[in-house]
Amino acid sequence: MEYIEEIRQFKEQIKFSEDKKFDVNLESFKNIVISGMGGSGIVGNIVKDLYSNKPVVVINDYNIPNFVDNSTLFVAVSYSGNTEETISSTEQAIKKGAKVLAITSGGKLKEIVKDSIIIPSSFQPRAALGYMAIPILNTLGVSDKNQLNELYELLSELDSNHDEFDNIAKEIFEGKKIPVIYGVPPYFSVSYRWKTQFNENAKVIAYSSNFSELNHNDTMALKETYRKRLFYFICLHDGLDQRIEKRISITQNLTKVNFKLIKAKGSTFFVREFYLIHVGDWVTYSLALLRNKDPENVRLIEKLKKELEKS
Amino acid sequence: MEYIEEIRQFKEQIKFSEDKKFDVNLESFKNIVISGMGGSGIVGNIVKDLYSNKPVVVINDYNIPNFVDNSTLFVAVSYSGNTEETISSTEQAIKKGAKVLAITSGGKLKEIVKDSIIIPSSFQPRAALGYMAIPILNTLGVSDKNQLNELYELLSELDSNHDEFDNIAKEIFEGKKIPVIYGVPPYFSVSYRWKTQFNENAKVIAYSSNFSELNHNDTMALKETYRKRLFYFICLHDGLDQRIEKRISITQNLTKVNFKLIKAKGSTFFVREFYLIHVGDWVTYSLALLRNKDPENVRLIEKLKKELEKS
Repeated sequence: MEYIEEIRQFKEQIKFSEDKKFDVNLESFKNIVISGMGGSGIVGNIVKDLYSNKPVVVINDYNIPNFVDNSTLFVAVSYSGNTEETISSTEQAIKKGAKVLAITSGGKLKEIVKDSIIIPSSFQPRAALGYMAIPILNTLGVSDKNQLNELYELLSELDSNHDEFDNIAKEIFEGKKIPVIYGVPPYFSVSYRWKTQFNENAKVIAYSSNFSELNHNDTMALKETYRKRLFYFICLHDGLDQRIEKRISITQNLTKVNFKLIKAKGSTFFVREFYLIHVGDWVTYSLALLRNKDPENVRLIEKLKKELEKS
Repeated sequence: MEYIEEIRQFKEQIKFSEDKKFDVNLESFKNIVISGMGGSGIVGNIVKDLYSNKPVVVINDYNIPNFVDNSTLFVAVSYSGNTEETISSTEQAIKKGAKVLAITSGGKLKEIVKDSIIIPSSFQPRAALGYMAIPILNTLGVSDKNQLNELYELLSELDSNHDEFDNIAKEIFEGKKIPVIYGVPPYFSVSYRWKTQFNENAKVIAYSSNFSELNHNDTMALKETYRKRLFYFICLHDGLDQRIEKRISITQNLTKVNFKLIKAKGSTFFVREFYLIHVGDWVTYSLALLRNKDPENVRLIEKLKKELEKS
């Protein structure tokens, strides 16, 4: 499948995953640990944004926290099933007696975790987010058929018309700007997902932060930093939280920086989170094309993994 | 006190805090939530790096997670005691029946939390890190007198000779570079602390990430990003984790980017974490002076808080 088709296929993943969930009794666990890296690792952060009935600890590393034991629900997310950090953390969790679940297309993870949801292979991991995230969110009761249907409609609309967002890529391209993406609560992981998509799709350095934390540090740089004209500021918001909206507007006034405001659509946090994520998929895809870079290509990451395997 | 004296005073805060701890029975709690913003909020991230016997969830927001209840140990950190996000989250935690502790120099937080450790006032919050972090780390059994003594010696050495690190500031200044700070496990919060110090002390935009997560996204941008020459890459490491060291070296080779490597000193994670933090204090202070910016001044943040109070 062409990479652009993988992006368009995101909404179909939502539909495909409608009934997918783990058969697990949540009541019996004190905490949830989600392990993964990069395009798979973002799943843990998304879960943390949307679910807080139990402590959720996200691991992007080889090692697991000491507290992991048989009261822990441990979810390993690795699209390939061979991510070395995730394999390492999962083996540790198994040893500690945690209840271990996995979402993967195969690989070693499928072999070591009995309780796995196997998803279609041959996608770029970052383009398989629906397959990876929805089963966990279904299991936790965050997503349901109504929300998934609403999201499907919104994503279809977006796929058929994203000119407005392609223009953002155009502005970034024309000024060779460095994208800075700001998010708002509770969509903390969305600005980071955009950053990683700028990296992997468009091959540009980007950075992300969130309100209101950025008001305690970034704000001091926004007015006086050198290279100020080189940054392109995007702010992802929902227009609903009046205190945060106030912060966005005061920050722009005081620092004389204009944010490109992108407003979420949807009736719930879940729907809005995924809508905002998919807008970023298109902006970063468009930037890749403008830069004449193959948005699918992540050969450097694959090369790095091979170099690591040698040693 | 002059701001440079506040930085030099960091080591004295270590000594001052030697016996400070909360009188609390850790056994009775299932999880720990630490709430704070900016220069105070980093304390939660530092605790999370160094303590993992229980799930630690860090809040940089107005709201607390649903799971907070009487099995939660909730620690509010606000240097001024008047940070609106922290007051809001603390009031919610009190309502939910959590055991609430606070570290503050006064303000509203002192009034609403009986069980507070009151620390000296009149510092910049980011220059009071020792006062804020050590009592919690003592309480959790992470720090002890031996380590605090070792840290004191290392910080004294650093304060009396930081020419090597001032040179980093000089290189950044001369090229008007955008600092990018990479960290390694388990010092995840240190690269972020550096970023915030670049923002608040030197008034420049900066961004941070950590190994090995950055190998799954940033790496794709490092080779091909435009504006590549404008970035200055710093990598904070400890030289101990062979897999991570390998990653650092392969990443540099594949992307043709040179990292300014800064190696931690100290015999434990705790000592190395605070040593690396303090190196960043000096680099960012030096950059402020070179840029002719007052490193202490954060008037824009104060102005923003006043604007918010009006509304």
